Order: sequence, then structure tokens, then C-alpha cells
Amino acid sequence: MTTCWVPGADGSPYGVQTLPYGAFRRGGGEQRLGVRVGDLVLDLRGAEEADEILAGGALCAPTLDAFLAMGRAQWTTTRRRIVELLTEPEHQARIAPLLIPLSEVDLALPFTVGDYVDFYSSEQHASNVGQIFRPGQPLLTPNWRHLPIGYHGRAGTVVVSGTPIVRPYGQRRSSDGPVFGPSRRLDIEAEVGFVVGVPTELGERVPTGRFADHVFGVTLVNDWSARDIQAWEYQPLGPFLGKSFATSVSPWIVPLEALDHAWVPAPVQDPPVLDYLREDDRRGLDLAIVVEWNGTRVSEPPFAGMYWTPAQQLAHLTVNGASLRTGDLYASGTVSGVRRDQVGSFLELSWGGTEPIKLDDGSERTFLEDGDTVTITATAPGPDGSTIGFGDVTGTVTPAA
Amino acid sequence: MTTCWVPGADGSPYGVQTLPYGAFRRGGGEQRLGVRVGDLVLDLRGAEEADEILAGGALCAPTLDAFLAMGRAQWTTTRRRIVELLTEPEHQARIAPLLIPLSEVDLALPFTVGDYVDFYSSEQHASNVGQIFRPGQPLLTPNWRHLPIGYHGRAGTVVVSGTPIVRPYGQRRSSDGPVFGPSRRLDIEAEVGFVVGVPTELGERVPTGRFADHVFGVTLVNDWSARDIQAWEYQPLGPFLGKSFATSVSPWIVPLEALDHAWVPAPVQDPPVLDYLREDDRRGLDLAIVVEWNGTRVSEPPFAGMYWTPAQQLAHLTVNGASLRTGDLYASGTVSGVRRDQVGSFLELSWGGTEPIKLDDGSERTFLEDGDTVTITATAPGPDGSTIGFGDVTGTVTPAA
Repeated sequence: MTTCWVPGADGSPYGVQTLPYGAFRRGGGEQRLGVRVGDLVLDLRGAEEADEILAGGALCAPTLDAFLAMGRAQWTTTRRRIVELLTEPEHQARIAPLLIPLSEVDLALPFTVGDYVDFYSSEQHASNVGQIFRPGQPLLTPNWRHLPIGYHGRAGTVVVSGTPIVRPYGQRRSSDGPVFGPSRRLDIEAEVGFVVGVPTELGERVPTGRFADHVFGVTLVNDWSARDIQAWEYQPLGPFLGKSFATSVSPWIVPLEALDHAWVPAPVQDPPVLDYLREDDRRGLDLAIVVEWNGTRVSEPPFAGMYWTPAQQLAHLTVNGASLRTGDLYASGTVSGVRRDQVGSFLELSWGGTEPIKLDDGSERTFLEDGDTVTITATAPGPDGSTIGFGDVTGTVTPAA
Repeated sequence: MTTCWVPGADGSPYGVQTLPYGAFRRGGGEQRLGVRVGDLVLDLRGAEEADEILAGGALCAPTLDAFLAMGRAQWTTTRRRIVELLTEPEHQARIAPLLIPLSEVDLALPFTVGDYVDFYSSEQHASNVGQIFRPGQPLLTPNWRHLPIGYHGRAGTVVVSGTPIVRPYGQRRSSDGPVFGPSRRLDIEAEVGFVVGVPTELGERVPTGRFADHVFGVTLVNDWSARDIQAWEYQPLGPFLGKSFATSVSPWIVPLEALDHAWVPAPVQDPPVLDYLREDDRRGLDLAIVVEWNGTRVSEPPFAGMYWTPAQQLAHLTVNGASLRTGDLYASGTVSGVRRDQVGSFLELSWGGTEPIKLDDGSERTFLEDGDTVTITATAPGPDGSTIGFGDVTGTVTPAA
């Protein structure tokens, strides 16, 4: 394993094996791009302006948009150069001044979200929701094993980790007809998101084998959900206001290059899928997700077991000719394992609100209360026994406005 | 009625009572903003560069985005100035050189689409689809009269009128399980779209009475739909690939100011709606829509009868605190009247494909065939007996790629 001259980086989940991209402001300054190493941020604009990194000026921009559009060859070249700068001792004197402590910056959403698509690709989650929302009916709809079900969410309300989550108002069902008020069943969905870099033309498909030509990297997603609003509104056209008030993403995008050691075989699919969804090398990402509720670790959803892989999701999304734009974000859907302490939503954790969860402070919860904070983190295997860290996605619920 | 010095404008649906905004290219030139008058386009960039119109440079841009964000006062001032320039004879010598024949330009999408939301607000359409897709069940889902049902569509595949529509591939149900191939039930949805100008902050609501503070204008929408793909995929999360391959919009955005005479009382709602959906002055727009299939006028959907109004749709969309961005587009949902020759989709016109339609050339149709062209137009009442014209939204189906 290469040695990094940045203090505290080696052995941390943010050593040179990771190097995720983000955007930051320092004081009241302008938004800049950065790469995290240890507990520091490398100022990419500073580095490109000093000709330490060459990316056609893309790294001098306030967002990753231009860099994302450049494609795999540039992404790889840039990453290699950053590794050189942070590991070869002869660069230390010039580069060290470009490193800023994380504690001195505010992190921002690092890319312009094009379209946001949310899938529904955990068999266990879909089965649990089916049991809770549609009792007595089959666990999965007939289409579930034939295609990765997904829908479009609201791109304009994707927010960076740390943004307060205002409890949404909306309609919910009551025995006297619908009533209006703050949601009483505010929930999370722990998900993994994929950020598209290279766009496509209308009519072009992205086969499963070309996933890495288009997807730049991975982020964590909390798709906040108001279950009472959702339950009343979602027939027949799907979730709308129950989801559109906020979707939080982690501030750091982990590039695919950092995840070479994190791929594992994905579950066997039965029945076999149609040709356009087949993969020569069917694989998922071994992310170990952790969900903390007011500091209590309540769940550890395993991403490796997802039925539909990110390559299949992208192939499905584009098989009808829908084009991709730089900045498109698609998320896996709630990640749930088979055990109760592996589910990615509180709907499942409290089994529809019927089985309260006890937190470490002795309090009980079913859904989110005002003031509650949820933090989702993840790690994945890196090279030589190292760990890849994903930035937290965190949010605190504030009272309905 | 004011007299316009532009030849052919007075008495046409594109006289000074209308003045819709669009974007165009001439030859291989750069994209510019324009306003249509008669069969000519007023070059807005040329006009602002010559200080004939003052809009802070917003009209020198290739898209309306900056102008849309400026708000009602600027929109009104600019429109008044354009009317002056086109009606007062002393301006003719200076302005006439800025008018370009429509035949010499290509029209482009005039704004960057933020989020695209599609509603489902025609009672007759929802009832028809319920009968066709869910026979034996109630015509409307229990929530339909309580809230304007909507969902997010794909903003990245909103295209300008005239863009070829490639028949999408996808999965459809068969007796032997799902099969993959070109859609066999390609359809249209004739809709009316609303373009958001002034954005909101996350957490802010737009009450029904503030519709005109945020919405800039109106466009026609054809939400192309692959019914076989949709029918198989849409449970439980709503339409996805059956809709996401293309949504066409007319090239001209008719500003709300042109529609002062087009408002009519909207249908009485029973049961009464919740407070946030109430309107002091409940009104809809009296657009007379015409759908032509290969030149045959097959339907005339009446927009005035929509159950949910555009002000209610906007209030609902934001009641959970979802923010608006400049360029957000929301569409009414398919417009269908009570008669068969008033429906806005071929699903309804052919009653699920069971009752073919005869076109003027003697051929019969249920759904769209390769090479078919659909054109949707509309008019609305203007001042002094004039007519407001909406640009066509047209598209020709090309074979699956």
C-alpha cells in the first residue's frame, strides 16, 4: 500500500485508497472543488491553478459538472495525479499549503442534479413494504423479478448532508376522510446513489457492460419519506409529495476507481432476466451501511445483497432510449437485509409503527420525532486490507413550518 | 384593439394579443430568444442590444432562464414595451429589420427544464383509464377527488416540437411472461403545460392565490406514452419507462398576460377540497385543443372542464415544502372531455385498442404506426374577439432503433 505524506491519512477510511470528490466553502468564500484525504480537503482549484493537476480548467469550477462530463480517461488520469501528489515526498512542500482542515469548511452539493431516479431493488425491502402496505396480497408485484422497478423523484430538492429536514405537511387518510397536517410517519430510506458523468443522446442505450463508461461514482442517499402522505397519494401514479420534500446525499462522491476491491458476486436471479438485463460479470458492491438514530446504531443494511445491480438499473433506465445527462443521479432503493436489524427504513424497523424501537437514551421511537437526527454511513473493502469510507449523510428533523 | 404595423399580424392568432416567447436559430447561427408576431419572429437579442427593450441583458441569452427568474413586474414591463414597438408607427423603421420570417428559422426548446411534473386532473380521462386498465374496479381511486394526483416525469427528455419520436423498446406482458421489443401501443397524451419562472425556497408554499407570481406562461405538451410498457411496469411506483423516452412541448410559451380573457369558472368540486386547495376565484383556462393524426382531426379536447386547476396543482406540488426552480414544468395530465371525440389519448379514442379510428385517407388506427405524425394545437379567447394561438406541438414516429 502506498504511503501518504498527509498526517493521519494512512490507515484511515480516507487514505489515498479513497479520495472522494466534493465541494466546499471556507468562511464566506466562493464554492470550490476538493478531494478529501484524512481529515483534510485538497483544494482542487488551487491545485489546477498552480498547474499541479491538469483537467482543462474543470477543477476550477464551483461544481464537478464539467469534470463529470469528461469521462473515464480523464477521471483516471486526474485520480492518478492526485495520488502522486499526496504520496511522493517531493510534492509535499508545494501541496501541503493546499490542504485545508475539514473543520474549517462547509460542504456543499458538488454537482447539479439532472434527473433523479429512485429504484426499488432490495427484495427484502420490497417484500416488507408489500406486507405492511398491501397485507394479504403477494409480497412482490408480478413484475418485480423481471425488471428493476423505479420512478422519477424530484431533482430540485436533493440537498447536501446536514441540511435541516422540515417535517412536511400533507394529506393523510383518516376514518373521516383525508385530513391535512404535519406528517406523523416521517421516515428515512437508506440508499446508495450513482452519479452519471458521461451523457448519452436520445435513443442511445447503455448496455450493462458499459456502466463504468458513464457512471462516475457513488454517494450515500437518505430518501426521506412521509409514509402517511405516501400511503394516501400513491395509487395509481406512484409516490409524489410523500418523497419530494427532501432527499439528502452525502457530500463526498467516491469514484468508481476506489471501489475495485468492493465488487462481489450479486445474487442469482430466478427467473432468468431478459437479455438486455444480463451481465457477463454479475456483481454488486459490498458496502456495509450503518444507520444511527440519535446516536444509537439501529440498523446495518448490507448493500451486497441487492437483487438488481447498478449496471442493470442503468441498462433498464436507458433501454427505452431515454437519454442521460451529466449529473443524473439514480439511487438503489432502500437497502434492507433479511434480519430486522438490517432494514433501511423505520417503517420496516418498527413494522409499520407497531413495534417501537428503544434508543440508547431509553426513549422509544416508531417514526421520526422533531429534533431527531439520523446519520447514515458506509464502508467498503479497499486494497490491501484498507477501508473505503463514504461521507456521512445526516439530517435533523425540524418542526413543520 | 391596438393595430399592429407588422403585415398579417392583426386578425391572426399571433397578433399583439398573443406575443409568445421562444428560441430560434437562423442558418447555423447561435440560439437567440424571440417573440412571435404574425409569421415573423422578433429578434429579442437584437432588440435588447439596440436598447429597444431593457431587461438587464436577460433577452440576450440563448434561453429564457434569466428572464423567467425576474418575475411578474419585469415580464409585464417587457411585454408592454414589445407591444409599443410593434404598434406605434414611429418604431417601425427601427424594429422592422429585427423581424425574421418564421420560415427562415429553426425553433428550439426555449428554457432549461428543472423538474417535470405530470398531473392527472381530467376526471373523464382518469375515469376512462380506470375502466380500461382496471376493469371492474371503481372508476376513480379514493384519493382522486381530494388531491390533484401527479408524479415526476423525466425532465431530460423534454424535447421541442418537431423532434422525431423513436418508438421505444421495453418489456410488455404476454401470456408466457414478459417479452422485450418495440412498443406496440405507442400513444399520445394531449396536455397543457405551465412554466415556472420565479423559484421558491425549500419549505415555502405557493398558495392558490399566488399562482401568477410564479408561473410565467403556458405551453402545449404531448406526453408520449407506451401503454404496453406502462401497463406492465407501473405497479406499485407509477409510470417510468412507458413515459420517459420523450415528452414534446410546443416551441412558443404564451405568457399569462395574454390569457386574461381566457379564464372561465372551473367545475364545482364535490366533496369540498381541503383549505390549502381552495380558491377565492376558482377558474380554469378555456383552451380549445385540436389533435390531428396524419392530418385528420380526430379529437377536440376541452381544457376548460379540468377538475383540478393549475393554481391548485401548484399549491399541491409545494404544500409539503418542495421548492420550485426556474424552468420547472408541470403539465395538466391528459385532457379529455365527455365525448369520444374529445379525448386526449388514443388509448381512449380506440377504447384500449378495441375500436379502430378511421383516418381521412381511409386507413385505420388504434395506436401509432411508424411514420405517423401527431400535431396538437390550441386556441383561446383573446381581447375584443381576438384569438390567442398556441404553437403546434408535433412529432413523427420513427421506427425502433
